[in-house]
Amino acid sequence: MDRLAVKRFDAMKLLVINVGSTSLKAKLFAMPEETLLCAAAAERVGSADGAKFFYRNILSGKELRREGLCIPDHARAIDMLMEAMTDRTLGLVADAEDIGGVGFKTVLSKGHYGVQRLTDDVIQGMRDSLFLAPAHNAPYLEAIERFSKQLPGVPLVGVFETAFHAGIPLFRRLYAVPYEWYERYGISKLGYHGASHSYVAEEAARLGRAERVICCHLGGSSSVCAIEAGRSVDTSFGFSLQTGLPHANRTGDADAYLIPFLLHEGLPMEEILDGMGKRGGLLGLSGVSGDLRDIQQAADAGNARAALAIQVFVCWIVRYIGMFYAELGGLDQLVFTGGIGEHASSVRAQVCQAVRHMGVMLDPGKNAASRGGIISAPDSPVLVSVIPANEELGVARQTYRCMTGAEMGEGT
Amino acid sequence: MDRLAVKRFDAMKLLVINVGSTSLKAKLFAMPEETLLCAAAAERVGSADGAKFFYRNILSGKELRREGLCIPDHARAIDMLMEAMTDRTLGLVADAEDIGGVGFKTVLSKGHYGVQRLTDDVIQGMRDSLFLAPAHNAPYLEAIERFSKQLPGVPLVGVFETAFHAGIPLFRRLYAVPYEWYERYGISKLGYHGASHSYVAEEAARLGRAERVICCHLGGSSSVCAIEAGRSVDTSFGFSLQTGLPHANRTGDADAYLIPFLLHEGLPMEEILDGMGKRGGLLGLSGVSGDLRDIQQAADAGNARAALAIQVFVCWIVRYIGMFYAELGGLDQLVFTGGIGEHASSVRAQVCQAVRHMGVMLDPGKNAASRGGIISAPDSPVLVSVIPANEELGVARQTYRCMTGAEMGEGT
Repeated sequence: MDRLAVKRFDAMKLLVINVGSTSLKAKLFAMPEETLLCAAAAERVGSADGAKFFYRNILSGKELRREGLCIPDHARAIDMLMEAMTDRTLGLVADAEDIGGVGFKTVLSKGHYGVQRLTDDVIQGMRDSLFLAPAHNAPYLEAIERFSKQLPGVPLVGVFETAFHAGIPLFRRLYAVPYEWYERYGISKLGYHGASHSYVAEEAARLGRAERVICCHLGGSSSVCAIEAGRSVDTSFGFSLQTGLPHANRTGDADAYLIPFLLHEGLPMEEILDGMGKRGGLLGLSGVSGDLRDIQQAADAGNARAALAIQVFVCWIVRYIGMFYAELGGLDQLVFTGGIGEHASSVRAQVCQAVRHMGVMLDPGKNAASRGGIISAPDSPVLVSVIPANEELGVARQTYRCMTGAEMGEGT
Repeated sequence: MDRLAVKRFDAMKLLVINVGSTSLKAKLFAMPEETLLCAAAAERVGSADGAKFFYRNILSGKELRREGLCIPDHARAIDMLMEAMTDRTLGLVADAEDIGGVGFKTVLSKGHYGVQRLTDDVIQGMRDSLFLAPAHNAPYLEAIERFSKQLPGVPLVGVFETAFHAGIPLFRRLYAVPYEWYERYGISKLGYHGASHSYVAEEAARLGRAERVICCHLGGSSSVCAIEAGRSVDTSFGFSLQTGLPHANRTGDADAYLIPFLLHEGLPMEEILDGMGKRGGLLGLSGVSGDLRDIQQAADAGNARAALAIQVFVCWIVRYIGMFYAELGGLDQLVFTGGIGEHASSVRAQVCQAVRHMGVMLDPGKNAASRGGIISAPDSPVLVSVIPANEELGVARQTYRCMTGAEMGEGT
């Protein structure tokens, strides 16, 4: 039986959970060996008939792949995951006690940063931050609650997304608002996608020139990060998650006065926040979908607003690359990661074409074919690469360190 | 008598009024000859003991220069201007009927763009836009009312600041919010400082390479504009005037969710808007003043927050230069204009040092000495220039065209 094969590691099995607005990804690692035991993903969570579920037992190679599902919420996705993981044929764990811990790629908890055991305090901090991160903290809280029930007694750990950006210099983190708002309420650029950008920072160094890196994480949530000598020195995410690039259904950077203006025009606050947090982004612009694949298809079929949404998206990526090119004083490597970054070769081509004067020369063939590795021309002054996101491994490492006491989070 | 000397032009005397948050500038032109007859300026309006008033009769060379004044509001500044202009010794107009028209460098009137007679409708539109442009429309409304009383029967014209930016492509003007907010409420990047940037676009072309220009208008309000072949193709001002670079006392770009977050924390909306619109910007960051001269002095004396405020300001200028360098596909000329842009050689030096990898090579001697002209090294790939702002001449031209029917505004 497959699960017996694992025993020889004498390892701690760590489950890593990555919840997106419309997705849930899970990986089970044997630590500290970093052996991947199984991987699972639910996509288009919330869809009544278009959701997908995938599960693969890496050791046996057996897998489950279903499409056209109804997965109304993250709790249902978790139940499907647990069913598969404990299945006689597909499974890798005997029962709840066989899982040493669960690491969550959590976003924001008021007063808690870095890597944290998900105590009642930290969970309360996540509830207190719901206002700032409604699209993220809500499904995470739902997922954490489900796991508490499914895996009673198993330690749950949050690896918060802001940790990697804590070293951004203060003058880049401040908004030009009364300084006491920074002191009293912590209003400043926090930055998110830390698990992804920190993973990319390590991988980019393996590919070659990586002193000054700009990483474009493009997906359901998108952000650009300026990385200097492996450290985040600026990023497009601000205080809240409704900042930076346009996201699937959340607005990116927007005029702060939109809200009082729309209130003044008679829109209730609830409707405004719903518009910016759920009906904005690529969905709001295109009117088609928040998923770039659907939008691209519509644009290809002649839908003008779908084409416009892609133009706006590319425009913001180019803007942030320019911004960070200015701040970094040059560029050595441009990285694409995340669902869109890894798969949408046409977005990569449009972006690279726009910034070719910065020394970015794409190899069109490599770009069209690649889902990983270098895609720039051999003589390109700037290395261009696709680095498949593996936030889960980063989370597994930090969760393991947290549980074994090797590394504690800040703000504990 | 001086005023008789003007008669020989058989000209229309046009008074141009430029109201800033804390300033009022006036110029009287004989049109269409564009002969400047007199210039006046009130600075630090609102100060009880630190305000300045300057008036010069250009034809006679006679002038008035007073400092340490109490000028509590713009109405008082206008009264001082009218007293000087009709003064027996200094004056250039006999009475109200001697003025053919007044052109205002107005900002925003709901539903009215371009160049407009200040009818009741247009003035009502300015009132309706008070919410968006409180720091600007309020003193303009005050000024327009004062001139209506001081100069009954004289046509008043508004040359709105958004006109130059109307050609920015839609994909750069849209926010990633529900598209119907754009259709219904016109929510999009409007852009301001049009009179300044359009004047610079013409002057930059006279200095040489000007296909791709980035213009930094730095003053009480600050903005950066990307100019391609003489036309605005992007700018840092968004929908409201509390966007883009940090301003004297108004926030620049800020997370839209700050407002609901602070409301959630218990701050009343009025206090939040006051913080962002009056106690933010360089004033809020430094805690010293909204005037860069005061902040620089404090920083030089060791005030850390003053130094930080300057760092934040320079950071945002560099960010926007990078953003527009990316969008323009290169750079031919970098222009500094506005009070800070023309006088703060240290800010220019810091900005140019940061973007030297874009081909910007400053001539330190020329930069330190210059208040106008080219300040880059002879072999600098990018021309760097200081172009003294002359928004008033631009406004005079457009006002004259509007009054003589040569050019009408849009949206009439």
